[in-house]
Amino acid sequence: MRCAFAVRRDGIVCASLFGRMSALRIHVDFALPADALASLREGTQGHQLVFAEQPAASVLGAAKADPGFALADIAFGQPDPAAVAAAPALKWIQLSTSGYTRYDTAEFRALVAARGIPVCNAAQVYAEACAVHAASFILAQARNLPRALRSREPHASPAWKQIRAAGTTLQGCTVLIVGFGTIGRRLAEMLRPFGVRVLAYRRKARGDEGVPVVTDAQLAQVLTYDVDHVVNILPDSPSTRAFFDAARFAAMKPGTVFHNIGRGTTVDQDALAHALHSGRLAAAWLDVTEPEPLPEGHALLTAPNCHITPHVAGGHHGESLTLVRHFLANLACFTRGETLVDRVM
Amino acid sequence: MRCAFAVRRDGIVCASLFGRMSALRIHVDFALPADALASLREGTQGHQLVFAEQPAASVLGAAKADPGFALADIAFGQPDPAAVAAAPALKWIQLSTSGYTRYDTAEFRALVAARGIPVCNAAQVYAEACAVHAASFILAQARNLPRALRSREPHASPAWKQIRAAGTTLQGCTVLIVGFGTIGRRLAEMLRPFGVRVLAYRRKARGDEGVPVVTDAQLAQVLTYDVDHVVNILPDSPSTRAFFDAARFAAMKPGTVFHNIGRGTTVDQDALAHALHSGRLAAAWLDVTEPEPLPEGHALLTAPNCHITPHVAGGHHGESLTLVRHFLANLACFTRGETLVDRVM
Repeated sequence: MRCAFAVRRDGIVCASLFGRMSALRIHVDFALPADALASLREGTQGHQLVFAEQPAASVLGAAKADPGFALADIAFGQPDPAAVAAAPALKWIQLSTSGYTRYDTAEFRALVAARGIPVCNAAQVYAEACAVHAASFILAQARNLPRALRSREPHASPAWKQIRAAGTTLQGCTVLIVGFGTIGRRLAEMLRPFGVRVLAYRRKARGDEGVPVVTDAQLAQVLTYDVDHVVNILPDSPSTRAFFDAARFAAMKPGTVFHNIGRGTTVDQDALAHALHSGRLAAAWLDVTEPEPLPEGHALLTAPNCHITPHVAGGHHGESLTLVRHFLANLACFTRGETLVDRVM
Repeated sequence: MRCAFAVRRDGIVCASLFGRMSALRIHVDFALPADALASLREGTQGHQLVFAEQPAASVLGAAKADPGFALADIAFGQPDPAAVAAAPALKWIQLSTSGYTRYDTAEFRALVAARGIPVCNAAQVYAEACAVHAASFILAQARNLPRALRSREPHASPAWKQIRAAGTTLQGCTVLIVGFGTIGRRLAEMLRPFGVRVLAYRRKARGDEGVPVVTDAQLAQVLTYDVDHVVNILPDSPSTRAFFDAARFAAMKPGTVFHNIGRGTTVDQDALAHALHSGRLAAAWLDVTEPEPLPEGHALLTAPNCHITPHVAGGHHGESLTLVRHFLANLACFTRGETLVDRVM
């Protein structure tokens, strides 16, 4: 994993050398495997680690309210937003996820702004794996893997010829990345040697994207004429809910492939199922749905060429250890008064 | 498709301008779809196209002996090696495949050398698609797609955690490409932005590989200590048969992933099945087997984590048209007396 954060030991050394910050009470509200826990203990020596009585079973789950939280200086996990208001010493929140919908409210933003509490997500922990996951979807579609892996067709049979002809190289095809942050940038880098033309959708171009930017005014036309693969990496927020609705699917060129590694809520799933049934879309590759998993009988489970993985795009071997290293690197920045990585508020 | 061959019209124009070659009798022994046939007819104006009475149904199949072949100047397809000796006017053979095992004999090489008949394969027609296919295998394995796509595990369940933890990024992993030609070079380019370390196996390093070369003396040690993915792109020949045998699989680091997009004969398939059953290999991704398709009950069909596509790696939308364009570009070179692309003899 390519990391933008520094080796964890540095921070600890510097914190004690400069002595800017006394021992901090760090509240952790999720379960960690042994190696990650050992790394966290070692990297936080000189501080106090406090674990929630009922830790969340995964980094995606909200933690239960915990009596030990009230005295925390630092929250690491998914703290209850209401509990934050009741923790007078709290100085920094390091979320364990990339998504932060449950904190993205006017009230919460006002609270942390008023108290000067920085809030960081863990986007960089999951970004590389997410970008590889999206690339794996695009390549599996290009090579027709779901069908080819099921087939034992003999050479020259009509079905075999169909499979061969349905495969593509990616030369000259256009991929539109909707939500162009860390993941999107890495995905664009990964797709470059395949001869893919990458476009980024953004509300406003910042000029540093490195690829052509499509804004709202052009989106429908670009979908209709240019795009072969749409990769949706939008986070969940009031402004992104059902961003991909019936009108947007209807605007897409016939044969477009739709990918979602952002959040399920950003898609009108009935409209997506309809677009698959009608043949407007050639396929959908989804790592996220709403809810997860989809209930029995959901339209997307039987929609043609709808390929679903169960919200595992960011997962990778050693993920918890990467998360701890990300936290420790940020802890070093925090104790030195330096800029935090992945700060979102 | 990125093509190393020029636009087809050039050749026709030049051939007539320079007048170096009178009308040639071009014998075609395989069936072409309408668009490719039209392109072939248009691009060979001024020459004579002769079609076999019983064309092969696919470019992979050997053509039947054809009475019209005896007068051919040029063979395009898979001509019967015995018929070549009996075609006194024959000046050039353009094979329709990448593989050319049935021509790779001492007798045939002596025959075409004595008569000055160049033999070309169609490697460039299939190379791009093959490289993308191999990349799709590597990424599907990295992201655990076969299992993830079957799963609807809820968050935080043990099975879900297993799936997340089984995913990887490709940062820092090592891919050994065995048989480092056009496909291998493109694959190396495609893997670069993923942070993959690529090694090439060759009998002798030429110095132009652009990646470190592993030769016979180092191969076993490299397999044991360094390699995460082996990508076999060896052609079929007496010297490559069962190149991957029990000893080579036993030398591989536990958890190695084996890919084959070369030819099935280069692998001892019983040894491969054993290496999968024993857990030595984490998975195998095969586009080629021996025979194709594998018969019911074959050990590889039930070996764990053995993923097989039915010899479709080189296939791509518009494949026949690409093949015709490759032929026409080479025809232009031939009529101008220039170097032919993909010449193998």
